[in-house]
Amino acid sequence: MSEKVNRRKLLVGAGSAGLVASSGVAPAYAQGKRRLKMVTTWPKNFPGVGTAAESIAKRVEIMSEGELKIKVFAAGEIVGAFEALDAVSTGSADLYHGADYYWQGKDPAYNFFTTWPMGMTATEFYSWIDFGGGQAFWDELATKFKVKPFICGDTGTQSGGWFTKKIETLDDLKGLRMRMPGLGGEVIRRLGALPVVLSGGEIFQSLQSGAIDATEWIGPWNDQAFGFYQIAKYFYAPGFHEPNAALTLGINLDVWESLKPTHQEHIRVACQAETQRVRTQYFYNNAVAFETLIKKHGVEVNNFSPEIMEAVKKISVEVLNELSQTSALAGRIYKSVQEHSALFNKWSLHADEGYMQMRRDG
Amino acid sequence: MSEKVNRRKLLVGAGSAGLVASSGVAPAYAQGKRRLKMVTTWPKNFPGVGTAAESIAKRVEIMSEGELKIKVFAAGEIVGAFEALDAVSTGSADLYHGADYYWQGKDPAYNFFTTWPMGMTATEFYSWIDFGGGQAFWDELATKFKVKPFICGDTGTQSGGWFTKKIETLDDLKGLRMRMPGLGGEVIRRLGALPVVLSGGEIFQSLQSGAIDATEWIGPWNDQAFGFYQIAKYFYAPGFHEPNAALTLGINLDVWESLKPTHQEHIRVACQAETQRVRTQYFYNNAVAFETLIKKHGVEVNNFSPEIMEAVKKISVEVLNELSQTSALAGRIYKSVQEHSALFNKWSLHADEGYMQMRRDG
Repeated sequence: MSEKVNRRKLLVGAGSAGLVASSGVAPAYAQGKRRLKMVTTWPKNFPGVGTAAESIAKRVEIMSEGELKIKVFAAGEIVGAFEALDAVSTGSADLYHGADYYWQGKDPAYNFFTTWPMGMTATEFYSWIDFGGGQAFWDELATKFKVKPFICGDTGTQSGGWFTKKIETLDDLKGLRMRMPGLGGEVIRRLGALPVVLSGGEIFQSLQSGAIDATEWIGPWNDQAFGFYQIAKYFYAPGFHEPNAALTLGINLDVWESLKPTHQEHIRVACQAETQRVRTQYFYNNAVAFETLIKKHGVEVNNFSPEIMEAVKKISVEVLNELSQTSALAGRIYKSVQEHSALFNKWSLHADEGYMQMRRDG
Repeated sequence: MSEKVNRRKLLVGAGSAGLVASSGVAPAYAQGKRRLKMVTTWPKNFPGVGTAAESIAKRVEIMSEGELKIKVFAAGEIVGAFEALDAVSTGSADLYHGADYYWQGKDPAYNFFTTWPMGMTATEFYSWIDFGGGQAFWDELATKFKVKPFICGDTGTQSGGWFTKKIETLDDLKGLRMRMPGLGGEVIRRLGALPVVLSGGEIFQSLQSGAIDATEWIGPWNDQAFGFYQIAKYFYAPGFHEPNAALTLGINLDVWESLKPTHQEHIRVACQAETQRVRTQYFYNNAVAFETLIKKHGVEVNNFSPEIMEAVKKISVEVLNELSQTSALAGRIYKSVQEHSALFNKWSLHADEGYMQMRRDG
């Protein structure tokens, strides 16, 4: 998934003056009330990722008995999706809800805090962040942008995407115009495809007009709503490019430190709860939509072939290695990621992965 | 896992008078303060499952600014582990934290709200409970005991256990004295083993004395602490008997309904957050302990053979079918479980299960 980069200047001035007035932090704090502004990288009420932002705001308001109110703005309402980090860094917004790999232009190391090709599953990622030292790296990176980050939602394993023809060999990827942003896009570029970056709302029309031959988005639930199956009947899942996608709540550091411990706990606990809720919501709705896509819409489901996966794995390591050389911090993070991935992979085979295999195969 | 059944009468009388005095609900409510008593099925501060109970209490106290205080009692402090449901039903305690399959003696349908042989993974279970109608069944069952139940923690996939000899054929199970409670125990009984119920603290000595030949408990993290590897070098994982183990926070219905919405939300959100935290904690600590058990303690890791698994699957279906005939409610629940399991299994192969397999195999 990804939203289109929108490089307009931040609307910090006149256009949002009314909002600034209603979120003036100091006087509100004096009364024990806080009014915070959350910008997001999602269309308004977009199912799953977007409704998560609304859900956090609602929960925090209930838990604080209205003392802490968060007003949620969709992408484009105050700033564009890709300007959310800047808005929070500069204090023109208090929080953002989004996916941190959208900030890879600011620092490529941000890719490690959402997902990466052939990377960790959701459970592995949480383990690394919460218990394996990942949060300290994330804090170190985000502090440069005056932000305190939390995991706050997760899509689970994303799908490989929608194709107008079967993809069986590496040759089938050559010249393929596919909507796929980020590191995944870089992997298919090196395999001869032409990755294209489009916002969610632009994909259907681009598929229909033939401007692109294929697209990925999130998974059956969100993809079905966009109707990709009407044009591209070949569905590939799982994807290799986003084995999970952690969502982030990022709070301006000064704002975070000015919150009383009670309100900090409301936000911290709400994010952890939201991660559980959203990941579950995606799994359930994906399972239901997957069934509908097959039975009602005649979608053909495939896995990527061993030939393609062998190449994808090799190139993914190459791309990750290059990413790790972009800064000393990126290098330290990648070392930690590699060590933890090795540890988790050994155990998975005797835990959830092993169980699901045993259940299926005997 | 499981704690020993302790059939002492509930200590509702003189022995807990001091506690009753300090948790008098009505007068405290009048002042806007609540003091609640939580009984648990765990030894004091037992890592993972036991510390989860303490964590919930602490989080709720912080989030409510001390308005809602929960005092946690270990198994045996007020009532024994298996008496926790009774204590909350009768109002002698306000909440319990435990695993609902401990109440299978009250109603066999309780097995569906923790885990069952060859059942759902943690993610699948949450999906069924939160989005697939599972919570309504659970509420229907728990209301009979005047309890409102929430998922509140999860161990993730449990391990198959520790054996003093290799288990390769069905013959190796014949006459095997193994500590395994509940439905899993019933499955191995039908395969010719002799299941034994022992509390966690009794297992090591029973292994050492030769009173039992094998045991399961939870997984590497908790099992290593008990030192089973010192006696039984053959470790089998994953287990078939507990593919996850959801923990429950059960609240006396009158107490739940008397809480103001703010406090209800603190408990609801804390439980959801705790589920995310505890499952992650188990995955991480199991991965670390697994490595230590192999590298430092020379443990041999095995999977159950196809011969054993084929029989286990057949018997598990038989046991579940019998369980579904214990009441009309159990029948309705099992039907829902079967439908959702089929739906989830199809999707898993193209989601987390499929991804992990693709990552490993190519």
